[in-house]
Amino acid sequence: MHDVIEAGPQQRVRLDVSYDGTDFAGWAVQPQQRTVQGVLEEALATVLRLPQVGLTVAGRTDAGVHARGQVAHLDVPEPIWATTGEQLLRRLAGVLPPDVRITGVRAVPHEFDARFGALWRRYEYLISDAPHGVDPLHRHQVLGWPRRLDTEAMAEAATRLVGLHDFVAFCRRREGATTVRQLQELTVTRSGHDIVCTVVADAFCHSMVRSLVGSLIAVGEGRRPADWPGGLLERDRRADDVTVAGARGLTLVAVGYPPDDELAIRAEETRVKRELPRR
Amino acid sequence: MHDVIEAGPQQRVRLDVSYDGTDFAGWAVQPQQRTVQGVLEEALATVLRLPQVGLTVAGRTDAGVHARGQVAHLDVPEPIWATTGEQLLRRLAGVLPPDVRITGVRAVPHEFDARFGALWRRYEYLISDAPHGVDPLHRHQVLGWPRRLDTEAMAEAATRLVGLHDFVAFCRRREGATTVRQLQELTVTRSGHDIVCTVVADAFCHSMVRSLVGSLIAVGEGRRPADWPGGLLERDRRADDVTVAGARGLTLVAVGYPPDDELAIRAEETRVKRELPRR
Repeated sequence: MHDVIEAGPQQRVRLDVSYDGTDFAGWAVQPQQRTVQGVLEEALATVLRLPQVGLTVAGRTDAGVHARGQVAHLDVPEPIWATTGEQLLRRLAGVLPPDVRITGVRAVPHEFDARFGALWRRYEYLISDAPHGVDPLHRHQVLGWPRRLDTEAMAEAATRLVGLHDFVAFCRRREGATTVRQLQELTVTRSGHDIVCTVVADAFCHSMVRSLVGSLIAVGEGRRPADWPGGLLERDRRADDVTVAGARGLTLVAVGYPPDDELAIRAEETRVKRELPRR
Repeated sequence: MHDVIEAGPQQRVRLDVSYDGTDFAGWAVQPQQRTVQGVLEEALATVLRLPQVGLTVAGRTDAGVHARGQVAHLDVPEPIWATTGEQLLRRLAGVLPPDVRITGVRAVPHEFDARFGALWRRYEYLISDAPHGVDPLHRHQVLGWPRRLDTEAMAEAATRLVGLHDFVAFCRRREGATTVRQLQELTVTRSGHDIVCTVVADAFCHSMVRSLVGSLIAVGEGRRPADWPGGLLERDRRADDVTVAGARGLTLVAVGYPPDDELAIRAEETRVKRELPRR
């Protein structure tokens, strides 16, 4: 289903995508569900006049999770790209519903791979602990917390999670998939009642960002000490005592890629299963 | 209906209010309609255990217009205020729907008047002329414009509107009401595809902000020269050739008041009908 039917030379095309995840059952196509992938593939097929298209994405976001820097790619038969390319962005704007936008369209080398070529993904998790609740104009993308959170303790806990670790305690395990990740950044900052958790890693396993944030909230509430989230890295299975923070607070904000001449190397490296270095 | 039934000493209370106007038929109570005033008065009556309360507001926003710095006042019987005051904000947070929040509650002198005491009101009108459309996460509060706007021409046109003028061309006239206003600030700024029109005046007549913005958009599109909006100030009736810009782009962001010891003077001054100075 994800292979383009047309034969002949293809142009690889990168799409930058933003969406409000509220009314989507996540990124990935599911039968009978409104998904970002489903809506985009249908719009692209319409505009490109193809029977179907297949998208590969950087981050398969869950139901309710938002994006303002999602990246996907697809292959477009060269004759179609030659006649449609420049107008694709405006045409898609007219066809797509207002809760999803393609903000960038450009031809990329065939080695570009939105999923395996990504160097890092950056997420932001927004929380408000204002006693009056969440700003109405941002309520679909901010988690409201009814009590004040100790963000200094959360920030301290966050520093202990950064680095190359097995994050199995924070992941929903999939058979045969690694849970070793390079957590490059995890910060907690406050401006008034607005709290931002920024999370950057080479990649994330399922529910990892929201589990990390959930463990930090437990610290912020004073239910757990600041060394608790870091201590979970010693476990060899999912930690059932970590609450997965709600989807609405989470936004995929950016994905990083290497320069074009390093694309092929990067994609191949990523396909090799990540392993903890021996010490 | 706007008079509190209870006799005895009353405490005047200032409320700061934010709302997403999308699902409200504006501020003012109307039969069979969901209005901000209606929802707030019901929540306040519930929490204060009063049969009804009456709110006076700084800016009676239209259907679809948002606020993050709206101000209102009401009078609360002193014994009720004495027992409820400090907890009012949290209790209201639990009772109000998520699209309206009371962000501040405080006792003020009896001379404080949210409507007649205001020195200025500040609105922001947000436009995006991105070819891909409006950011999905901000789509309820930003007007999408499908063609690029010349914001330099808009900014130039805006400067010609600032000052004390009869804005009748930009107003829906009400019998006996003045349309003379002191427009203190009207600026147009761009950051990428995001355009902000900031409008500050002592007060606004009905539809004035959206008519000002509509006239600037006509300039930005090149349909009118930059001196056209300023020229409309010479007219003696509503200009039918000015398009009222859509409600969704407009947010009341702040209202200014004098220090407490000047409150009574200001409210009295405002009640006197504004007149153009003789030249």
